[in-house]
Amino acid sequence: MTEEVSLMNRTNELFQEQLTILNVGAPNFREDLKLQGQQVTQIKWQPPMDGDQELLELLDRYSFDDGVVEANRKAVDIVMSASPVLIGIEPAYKVVPGMTEDTILHSGPPITWDHMCGTMQGAVIGALLYEGRAADEGEARQLAASGRITFSPCHEHSAVGPMAGIISPSMPVHIVENRTTGNRAYCSVNEGLGKVLRFGAFSSSVLERLRWIEKEFAPVLNKAVEMAGGVDLKLITAQAVQMGDECHNRNKAATSLFFKEITPFMVQSGYPMPQVLRAIDFIRSNDHYFLNLSMPACKSALDAACGVERSTVVTAMARNGVEFGIKVSGLGRL
Amino acid sequence: MTEEVSLMNRTNELFQEQLTILNVGAPNFREDLKLQGQQVTQIKWQPPMDGDQELLELLDRYSFDDGVVEANRKAVDIVMSASPVLIGIEPAYKVVPGMTEDTILHSGPPITWDHMCGTMQGAVIGALLYEGRAADEGEARQLAASGRITFSPCHEHSAVGPMAGIISPSMPVHIVENRTTGNRAYCSVNEGLGKVLRFGAFSSSVLERLRWIEKEFAPVLNKAVEMAGGVDLKLITAQAVQMGDECHNRNKAATSLFFKEITPFMVQSGYPMPQVLRAIDFIRSNDHYFLNLSMPACKSALDAACGVERSTVVTAMARNGVEFGIKVSGLGRL
Repeated sequence: MTEEVSLMNRTNELFQEQLTILNVGAPNFREDLKLQGQQVTQIKWQPPMDGDQELLELLDRYSFDDGVVEANRKAVDIVMSASPVLIGIEPAYKVVPGMTEDTILHSGPPITWDHMCGTMQGAVIGALLYEGRAADEGEARQLAASGRITFSPCHEHSAVGPMAGIISPSMPVHIVENRTTGNRAYCSVNEGLGKVLRFGAFSSSVLERLRWIEKEFAPVLNKAVEMAGGVDLKLITAQAVQMGDECHNRNKAATSLFFKEITPFMVQSGYPMPQVLRAIDFIRSNDHYFLNLSMPACKSALDAACGVERSTVVTAMARNGVEFGIKVSGLGRL
Repeated sequence: MTEEVSLMNRTNELFQEQLTILNVGAPNFREDLKLQGQQVTQIKWQPPMDGDQELLELLDRYSFDDGVVEANRKAVDIVMSASPVLIGIEPAYKVVPGMTEDTILHSGPPITWDHMCGTMQGAVIGALLYEGRAADEGEARQLAASGRITFSPCHEHSAVGPMAGIISPSMPVHIVENRTTGNRAYCSVNEGLGKVLRFGAFSSSVLERLRWIEKEFAPVLNKAVEMAGGVDLKLITAQAVQMGDECHNRNKAATSLFFKEITPFMVQSGYPMPQVLRAIDFIRSNDHYFLNLSMPACKSALDAACGVERSTVVTAMARNGVEFGIKVSGLGRL
């Protein structure tokens, strides 16, 4: 998104001069800024939620109940022993449970079109244009508001996506299988930085890239993953964390390691070499590629821990731009 | 080398049991072992060199001389501003200064055949077999001892190599140019782990690999580097160090980053795809590949700082298995 880029440029400019910085809340930012030689004034602040004292005490007591402790240990064991493996990439309508041609998945808890923030609406408009369901922004808005589109949270379809998290039927999704428990998780392909759907952009360059991902990129990667017999994402993540990635906003090591695993198979995929080279270059030039693999890897691990009776382990945390929601293991599978 | 592998296995076995460990000298090893839950007894020891007190004082005084301080600052500036770029890979006889068909380069200070340690002799035997100068070990030993082979330190030919550091005329060497100063440095290709020439092995598998590197691998890489317009080694090293590599015994990040830079060009090199794939897989499966790029990168930076009058900066430290030598900037160019 252009705003994002210009903000980054502006930030770089600002750091050339001596700044007066107020940091509100979490002190970590202060520490990092201090390391960069900046003067920081810390303002003590915390979210205005003192909580319901009675409820908190009840939760505390509940958490130390032997049965709950045991249930939580079981849930954590399931998460820790997960073995997420990338096994393919296919259009969402073919593989994502409950996906229909009128379904659009989004990030966070359930939300209706009229309550979505602008960014998510922008991404929905982009998805409808990409799917050929609308000819322009106006038609897309009309269709989105008409009630004919089913909006549903990614997290209710074993899926996950960064930012707006929009997944429409034709979008290829990485298929990650937790080989320990057999469940699968799905995630779209990271588009890179700049103008991208996940930040609500829907210009022609965004739509062209989505179509290219679908028509050219995904078939090559899918074939390569098949030839590789799957790619072990836990192994890559474990190494990448040692190499300084946190695998969310820093994915350079993980993307490089993934690239090293998959490239030889992409070359041997049998697709025309110019297409293969564009596909290779797409991963090569996007250090965030692995984000959309680490997310479903975690999703496949945490989904496996859903539905452990009495467990208070949080298995999902997600926001849709308006509301924030969590899923708790003991509250059921969905 | 098989001994190396079996030693590693033995080490792994040992770490299954509780050990009694004596650590002699540098305490760093004790600290690391403690972190692994091992009991360590530290023995205070330092090399039996108290030094020549008079000479030490003279050196101290010399080091604080304004002219020397200024010269050292100049030498360090040259090192810090180096810009090492991989520009190609060619047989040593074509590019290494002073290389003749009878020359064999080795690690460390000058040494004659009869004084070489077994490892270096083994590597020389391997090089002579690889070059077709001898039919078997006996002939190679005879030729090496005959005086017809010129043994010369890598460091006297702008070259560098790990362990035995043997470079013979036909061996392809990475060509690294310091774009700040224009000088070049050269280094052989890392063979991987297991039986390798640099540890003195010269069995048929070692020689076959060397021939494959020369005939199949080097041409593909050379073309790829040319198409890439060179590969910036400082950029990769700077990132890899942030990712946990020290770029000597841990090169996984650097090798992965290098792999990501060069693979697309290898695919487009025009060589037959099976050959290209073998070349790609050779880098992919050897995490130490970058060692033989970081070494000449440093060499090109430090060589540039040779010959700064009055500078006491050490521009090379190297051992040949018997003796250890240093080069000091102010003592001249060679």
